[in-house]
Amino acid sequence: MRNCIPLSLFMIVLAALCPISSQADEGMWLFSNPPAGILREKHGVELSQQWLEHAQKSAARMSTGGSAAFVSADGLVMTNHHVGMPALADLSTPESDLLETGFYAKTRELELKCPNLEMNVLWEVEDVTEQVKTAAPPGMPPADAHAERRETISVLESEYEKATGLDCQVVTLYGGERYHLYQYKRFTDLRLVMAPEKSIAFYGGDNDNFEYPRYALDVCFFRVYENDSPYHPEHYLSWSKTGVAEGDLVFVAGHPGHTQRHATVAHLAFMRDVEMPARMRDFWRREVQLQTLSARDDEFARIADGHLTGIQNARKAYTAIAAGLQDPVLMNRVAASEQRIRAAVEANPEYNNRWGGAWDDIAAARNRYREFYLRHRVGINSTLFGIATHLVRLAEELPKPSAQRLPEYADANLDALYRSLHSASPIYDELEIEQITSALSHMIDSFGGDDPFVKRALGDLSPRARAESLVLACTLKEVSVRKALAEGGAKAIAASDDPMIRFAADLDPEFRAWRKKCEDEVEAVERDAYARIASARFAIDGERIYPGATFTLRLAFGTVAGYSQLGQTVLPFTTFGGLYERAEARRGQKDYALPERWLKRKSRLDPDTPFNFVCTADIAGGNSGSPVINEDTEVVGLIFDVNAPCLAHYIAYADDDGRAIAVDARAIIAALDRVYRAKPLVAELLSR
Amino acid sequence: MRNCIPLSLFMIVLAALCPISSQADEGMWLFSNPPAGILREKHGVELSQQWLEHAQKSAARMSTGGSAAFVSADGLVMTNHHVGMPALADLSTPESDLLETGFYAKTRELELKCPNLEMNVLWEVEDVTEQVKTAAPPGMPPADAHAERRETISVLESEYEKATGLDCQVVTLYGGERYHLYQYKRFTDLRLVMAPEKSIAFYGGDNDNFEYPRYALDVCFFRVYENDSPYHPEHYLSWSKTGVAEGDLVFVAGHPGHTQRHATVAHLAFMRDVEMPARMRDFWRREVQLQTLSARDDEFARIADGHLTGIQNARKAYTAIAAGLQDPVLMNRVAASEQRIRAAVEANPEYNNRWGGAWDDIAAARNRYREFYLRHRVGINSTLFGIATHLVRLAEELPKPSAQRLPEYADANLDALYRSLHSASPIYDELEIEQITSALSHMIDSFGGDDPFVKRALGDLSPRARAESLVLACTLKEVSVRKALAEGGAKAIAASDDPMIRFAADLDPEFRAWRKKCEDEVEAVERDAYARIASARFAIDGERIYPGATFTLRLAFGTVAGYSQLGQTVLPFTTFGGLYERAEARRGQKDYALPERWLKRKSRLDPDTPFNFVCTADIAGGNSGSPVINEDTEVVGLIFDVNAPCLAHYIAYADDDGRAIAVDARAIIAALDRVYRAKPLVAELLSR
Repeated sequence: MRNCIPLSLFMIVLAALCPISSQADEGMWLFSNPPAGILREKHGVELSQQWLEHAQKSAARMSTGGSAAFVSADGLVMTNHHVGMPALADLSTPESDLLETGFYAKTRELELKCPNLEMNVLWEVEDVTEQVKTAAPPGMPPADAHAERRETISVLESEYEKATGLDCQVVTLYGGERYHLYQYKRFTDLRLVMAPEKSIAFYGGDNDNFEYPRYALDVCFFRVYENDSPYHPEHYLSWSKTGVAEGDLVFVAGHPGHTQRHATVAHLAFMRDVEMPARMRDFWRREVQLQTLSARDDEFARIADGHLTGIQNARKAYTAIAAGLQDPVLMNRVAASEQRIRAAVEANPEYNNRWGGAWDDIAAARNRYREFYLRHRVGINSTLFGIATHLVRLAEELPKPSAQRLPEYADANLDALYRSLHSASPIYDELEIEQITSALSHMIDSFGGDDPFVKRALGDLSPRARAESLVLACTLKEVSVRKALAEGGAKAIAASDDPMIRFAADLDPEFRAWRKKCEDEVEAVERDAYARIASARFAIDGERIYPGATFTLRLAFGTVAGYSQLGQTVLPFTTFGGLYERAEARRGQKDYALPERWLKRKSRLDPDTPFNFVCTADIAGGNSGSPVINEDTEVVGLIFDVNAPCLAHYIAYADDDGRAIAVDARAIIAALDRVYRAKPLVAELLSR
Repeated sequence: MRNCIPLSLFMIVLAALCPISSQADEGMWLFSNPPAGILREKHGVELSQQWLEHAQKSAARMSTGGSAAFVSADGLVMTNHHVGMPALADLSTPESDLLETGFYAKTRELELKCPNLEMNVLWEVEDVTEQVKTAAPPGMPPADAHAERRETISVLESEYEKATGLDCQVVTLYGGERYHLYQYKRFTDLRLVMAPEKSIAFYGGDNDNFEYPRYALDVCFFRVYENDSPYHPEHYLSWSKTGVAEGDLVFVAGHPGHTQRHATVAHLAFMRDVEMPARMRDFWRREVQLQTLSARDDEFARIADGHLTGIQNARKAYTAIAAGLQDPVLMNRVAASEQRIRAAVEANPEYNNRWGGAWDDIAAARNRYREFYLRHRVGINSTLFGIATHLVRLAEELPKPSAQRLPEYADANLDALYRSLHSASPIYDELEIEQITSALSHMIDSFGGDDPFVKRALGDLSPRARAESLVLACTLKEVSVRKALAEGGAKAIAASDDPMIRFAADLDPEFRAWRKKCEDEVEAVERDAYARIASARFAIDGERIYPGATFTLRLAFGTVAGYSQLGQTVLPFTTFGGLYERAEARRGQKDYALPERWLKRKSRLDPDTPFNFVCTADIAGGNSGSPVINEDTEVVGLIFDVNAPCLAHYIAYADDDGRAIAVDARAIIAALDRVYRAKPLVAELLSR
């Protein structure tokens, strides 16, 4: 039910496992297992327990799919503008479009409460591998083992939640080789303090996205409140007085969403041949559709803007990942690495006995998945349909014990679910109709117009006529109606004649059946197989490996460094001066016009101020909004993007030309001070 | 090897057959079988033989896929700007972009020769049904019959060409029930006289395309030369002094490209479930890709512009056609109509014996086609690859007797082929690389990265690396190299180490095999079956039926009439005043800025001058550039588009809200006179 889905959330969370790290600046490390050896050997640095705890408890995860950090004693939170964008869109109206105008609350009374935004801070971590693993004794069929583990996880989460009062989630690491229980402090009252205009936050638009050099002030600030007062965090990051220079060591504390660095060759071939074609088709279709809608008039353009940006962002990212998968050179490299481990396993009878079949199990599961991947993936990307489905499922799931429900309806997740169900975020009929029309049309494309499921979904109407009949008469646009249905349970759902409720109730058994089939025949098998491969890797390569990304807190490190591109050196820093030069060179082009304020106040800015910079830290989608900090845990930058070569790191890291891109902390202060005249905010950031 | 393919050419030319006409303004009529009855009964009009001959011999077909007409005694030709656009792009350079600036040759010496443009005028028609049909005696297997007929057609074309000196083509009408031999005068020296700026010719861009009200000056003028002197046509259209009014009867003489008005239900289901999903995916992919390329810089945007416009145009058209196919209401109507004929056939034992199995034969052929449709459709949309393939095939085909070659290499077609092979139109490496990369990537999407054909196409490289290796070293950018290879035949091809030649030679056997399979197992079967259905229709419904569109000359008629849209009346005419209002309302938006000239000279224009108008004439893609004439064969307008509801006429005509859109002849004169100060051109158009 989120309106805008940043990159990380497009990435399916299937378990993955990461390689032994070389001495490159590689790795998304657990705070409980930092890369102490590499840091010592390569950079001569030791991180203390205090250092790690301070960084961990200052960092945060945003419900819109990105990262953030506390940056003042009064609960100020810094993240990317594009991570805050769904909240900014929610707060906008046709008369007052915050994406266009930007926003700054001169006093705390003027800070704007965000109806649909929450934030989590990782507080404690408990290793529960033993409990989870013993839930499924060896020899149990994978689907049953998966169910047993899931139930154990759900019970653990509830117990810890009751005991600690914190939000608890068990995280599957190393493809299922280890399980950690993460305890989060949750914050649900966030208020907008400052956001620049989207035109400078996303300067260069989709065109410059994933490119470098860049000139973007992709930042915004919220303040966390508790009981209507600013929250005073135990930990927050101070601002660096000096900033960074080329060659400096930096750290990134954030939440990389997903990687596939040690998917098997069979799994990657599936991604290349089945998953990517379907995803790319979906992106292309939706991008063209939203552009067409946007072109109809300014109001549609405003409504569709966040969706379109999200789609273009994801399309560009997946294009790069697909290109990696389609590159025989890269695939041969992965195959060689897989072969090394398989050979070592096969050479040792005990290893072979325990882990030898894992690769074939994955290949077999993927072969089965080929047969129903499109059926499993089919869905309807509409806010109203999402609400209706949640209401239908709530009625079905709530009567069960928490541990036996679909995980998103477990007790631990209900608060978040109700918050999103009760959100007053605006819903636009025209956009809903477009999205449902498109989804129904896509079903015909995928399965044919005579398919029984498709015919049921269409109800003898054209996709457009069906979508109109569902949306125009839908009563779920009223929050009170949703509340009544959620409270009324199965009886209320059965009695409802809302067309969207009836539609969702009619289709849901099919959606659930495919989901179950995928969980039983693919996910469960692979969970088991990837855990075995991880065990083999630990046995063969030792303990110095980091787990694949899981949209949980990780520590990355790297150096501020330029790179070479088509024979040219790309310098690590850009400047305000470069921004004004680019605006001049691109005069008259979409997404390159500077906001009025930036034109008017140009002379107040030092053209040599560093604006954006790149570093070698190993990050991924989900890291958006992560603070870049120095050895003293001071803020020196704010991650907001990667360059195109870095996108293929999804499959394999290489530090030659892939780079993480950050806003320089000095540019943030200068812009707040000179362009936005936000003196109190600057003072708050610089105070200690 | 055309760079830009207008709407009509996207439509596959498979036989189709049209219904008995009601008294609606329906039909794309043969000049040899005009709708005399309807015109007499509904409009009280008789068309004389002189009228028909004059209209026929004034009308023309352009090699870029549209229509046109002679409009002066000195060989002046009028067509749409978008039909002339490939020629305008060819004549443009980074320094002088005619699409941006427009063009007007004040004197004949300044007229610009178009290197790659030709035009045909239909001069005589001969019914050769008997000869073609007797080539394949009853009972012969369809594939053999198809081959026999094709050989006979080829022989007929050659013989008539020799005898008449005209360009001869046999046209299959009524789905193969009748064959007519068309004799064309061909003109190959066309020079650009006048073209407005693309910004006014395509005002509102892709956004307003297929919409109404409209404000577009989609016109341009060429002059036909012979022996370096202006050609003096025997027939040309005079200009109307008064123009048209609401309710007036008008005629359209042009070349509708393709319709599917009586495809069987099984055939339409195939289109809906197999063909459209593949086409739409292709459009979306290419549209996003070309937009991305265009965004990189202005020069790429200029290079990609024509391609992008073509893709967006086709995507929008196919979206509407797909929506028609996905509409159960429309499909049920088609099914009922099919059922009526089938029932009448089944009720008559003689009919049933002769024609009864036709519908099932088509269903069976389409079922076979489902299995290899994607293999058959696979292709590489690149100019250099197209040239290489033609050279490879020429070497293989030329040694055979003309009638046994692939039809495009028959003697009758060689001139046009050589002209296009020898064209000096610019070829852009970057665009070629993008297109080949995309095509190779699309092959992986379709068949998987481990498919043997795909692996051969990739040659162990990534799609991008393979495309670069093929394009950068390709020698075919030099016309002289192409000439040498064409002259050198099979030996030269075998000896060539040009990477693109080797690539094309390597892949071509596969492409040819799928083509042959489709011809033998689908087209031949359907040719036969559709001819039988047409015979049944003639027997049941009588002679008053028109054939489906075949990109050959047809006469349509209709009235100037507004329509109703979402409860609002849309008036038939727009005005110059409306143009300036729209420019004001859409200020700052892409594709709505007026050219400098139009802003400066606004006061010279009468705001009440009619600009565009709509009528009920039955047209289709390919009709672009058709003259709209009155009962005195005077020019009153110029067809350039249809509105969205009209796009579904591809499957079934309805005159409720589907409309053809034309530039008003009065707007053309006023703009030439007042905005472009083209007095001599105006005088030439108005002289008789």
